[in-house]
Amino acid sequence: SNDVKEYENYFGVTLLDRRSDKRTDSKWLSKKQCHPATVYILFSNLSPLVTLGGGRESSQQPEVKLCRLYWKDVEQCMNQTEECTLIFLGVELQFDMTLMAACNGKVLQEDEDGLVAWFALSIDSASAEKFKQKHEAYYFLHPPMPALLQLPEKEAGVIAQARSVLAWHNHYRFCPTCGSATKIEEGGYKKTCLKEDCPSLQGVYNTSYPRVDPVVIMQVIHPDGNHCLLGRQKRFPPGMFTCLAGFVEPGETIEDAVRREVEEEAGVKVGHVQYVSCQPWPMPSSLMIGCLAVAVSTEIKVDKNEIEDARWFTREQVVEVLIKGNQRSFFVPPSRAIAHQLIKHWIGMNANL
Amino acid sequence: SNDVKEYENYFGVTLLDRRSDKRTDSKWLSKKQCHPATVYILFSNLSPLVTLGGGRESSQQPEVKLCRLYWKDVEQCMNQTEECTLIFLGVELQFDMTLMAACNGKVLQEDEDGLVAWFALSIDSASAEKFKQKHEAYYFLHPPMPALLQLPEKEAGVIAQARSVLAWHNHYRFCPTCGSATKIEEGGYKKTCLKEDCPSLQGVYNTSYPRVDPVVIMQVIHPDGNHCLLGRQKRFPPGMFTCLAGFVEPGETIEDAVRREVEEEAGVKVGHVQYVSCQPWPMPSSLMIGCLAVAVSTEIKVDKNEIEDARWFTREQVVEVLIKGNQRSFFVPPSRAIAHQLIKHWIGMNANL
Ligand SMILES: Nc1ncnc2c1ncn2[C@@H]1O[C@H](COP(=O)(O)O)[C@@H](O)[C@H]1O
Ligand SMILES: Nc1ncnc2c1ncn2[C@@H]1O[C@H](COP(=O)(O)O)[C@@H](O)[C@H]1O
Repeated sequence: SNDVKEYENYFGVTLLDRRSDKRTDSKWLSKKQCHPATVYILFSNLSPLVTLGGGRESSQQPEVKLCRLYWKDVEQCMNQTEECTLIFLGVELQFDMTLMAACNGKVLQEDEDGLVAWFALSIDSASAEKFKQKHEAYYFLHPPMPALLQLPEKEAGVIAQARSVLAWHNHYRFCPTCGSATKIEEGGYKKTCLKEDCPSLQGVYNTSYPRVDPVVIMQVIHPDGNHCLLGRQKRFPPGMFTCLAGFVEPGETIEDAVRREVEEEAGVKVGHVQYVSCQPWPMPSSLMIGCLAVAVSTEIKVDKNEIEDARWFTREQVVEVLIKGNQRSFFVPPSRAIAHQLIKHWIGMNANL
Repeated sequence: SNDVKEYENYFGVTLLDRRSDKRTDSKWLSKKQCHPATVYILFSNLSPLVTLGGGRESSQQPEVKLCRLYWKDVEQCMNQTEECTLIFLGVELQFDMTLMAACNGKVLQEDEDGLVAWFALSIDSASAEKFKQKHEAYYFLHPPMPALLQLPEKEAGVIAQARSVLAWHNHYRFCPTCGSATKIEEGGYKKTCLKEDCPSLQGVYNTSYPRVDPVVIMQVIHPDGNHCLLGRQKRFPPGMFTCLAGFVEPGETIEDAVRREVEEEAGVKVGHVQYVSCQPWPMPSSLMIGCLAVAVSTEIKVDKNEIEDARWFTREQVVEVLIKGNQRSFFVPPSRAIAHQLIKHWIGMNANL
């Protein structure tokens, strides 16, 4: 229908439909695994395989692009590699039947559903070395940040999904309840203890499911409405300031976490808190929840254990840096980072006053 | 200052200041542990110790109250119990110096900071039995839900905090990275692997910190604005319908999770999503993120694996049930549940149209 079309244009922000119903369909999964249209994205040590594309002729920075591989490219890796983890990511939303048939080099089989599946494959260092020798233009993006922020938004979402689940398998190899070995199930989204009488097998426990850590990140506004509070950690590049942030603790609301973190890190009291937007952050598996927070006190007392510095910046200073690109005094994270978006959101709001 | 006073009246929603800086101050913690003003709340099998209070003379339902114990009440338990876990919850925000001195039976010592600390103590079943025999009016609230929803909001927050951290210790006894035993640190908020060369000790990993699972819960509005989508799971009491909900997956935004879950569970497509409010849910450790979601399709296709039923209800039907208390046709969760608040929020919004 027309409504649905409009919706897809407007809200079609994800590249893939996760199709969680297929995770338990092992027959479907193994069939898709070696289907020639299936897309593979490769990881080594939690770094995705990328290449440079576009922008090279012009004066622009070369663009980092995620490599899309096929069964023929990874078949050998998968047979050779001892430690390889496979995650089902979903199926492509926009799908062109004829395109797939062409890539296939033949007409569709009767039992095919026409869905293009995506998998993430993590391979060990030895296989990664061999792979790079064969494909010279490809490399594993390390460290993944901040380069990941240069990827197109939809691709970044898929990488966030894949990297978070792979990081979970990396760090959660043993059953936290009894310490036994585990096995991977449901396309990579479940982990089950191998010890028969483990209490984790009685009922549903979060030990079996990937972890997502909610983090609050907030643009704190001065009571006068014309300053905002930005801080920096010791490990930041010199001159970079950004929004304060911190993990949501058990039993806490988003709003309480914002108030607690701002008071802990900068000694500033916050009143009203308003949700703005969020961003998955695959380092390893956070959900950054972006808020606007209105301060009700102004004196800054920096907790040196948590951050190195925090200051009130004027609206003019922030406009200088963000809009005019004058980064002599300080700079903020790149535009794809949620902190950048929160700061920009505030500038826009303020302009309307 | 006056600003701060106003802020506390308006935003003083938490009972305790978590004072995470004190978690690493083991000297302070052990001093507070046996201080006579320190408050203990007790748990057995993740159920909190409560009593009935108030409302008994009147026709009202008796009110469930969290028991506040002191060092003298728990001293014996702590010495006898093999398996007891102690969590530092924070310090009281409103503190009355003279009151503490009185309870103390003496004037404040010079080295006292006047802070009233709260701890959660989890004891084993044998100790719990003994305790109940000594204190007849007290009992462990089991199952904790839905009774927990009857507690005053501030107390419910403290219980959510304590229960979530205790559940984490219950289910995460071993290091997920190497399978070795772990030790509890930092007032109960950190868990460290005891194996010297475990990779989890190299750098900061979320394996060491309590888990908080973000869940989206959404009031889905029909494109006509006058119906909402409510569903029920098989395990619900007969007649109960509520908002759809589901876990946020790795790499997903809150808005995408809302769209995915509604489509998965009910086959309905959602366009615009708006954050409303959130609620910690200690079963075992979720953060319920409440949203309003506007549907762009109307046909319902229930996924029987996930839910039993889902229907569009008219505004009039919901007003009947929620405001007039007529629960003949169906009913919704109690007023302290976020689902109730979301539904009510929509009724209010709609009334303003
Ligand atoms: N962190 C998690 N904890 C528990 N269940 C999860 C988690 N993540 C995904 N699930 C899935 O969600 C289902 C429970 O959902 P619900 O019935 O809404 O509580 C489980 O059967 C799991 O398949
Ligand atoms: N889930 C978590 N993962 C990592 N660090 C955490 C977590 N929860 C709390 N923390 C604490 O947050 C600190 C890191 O915060 P940050 O520097 O903002 O990344 C760590 O040193 C921990 O003390």
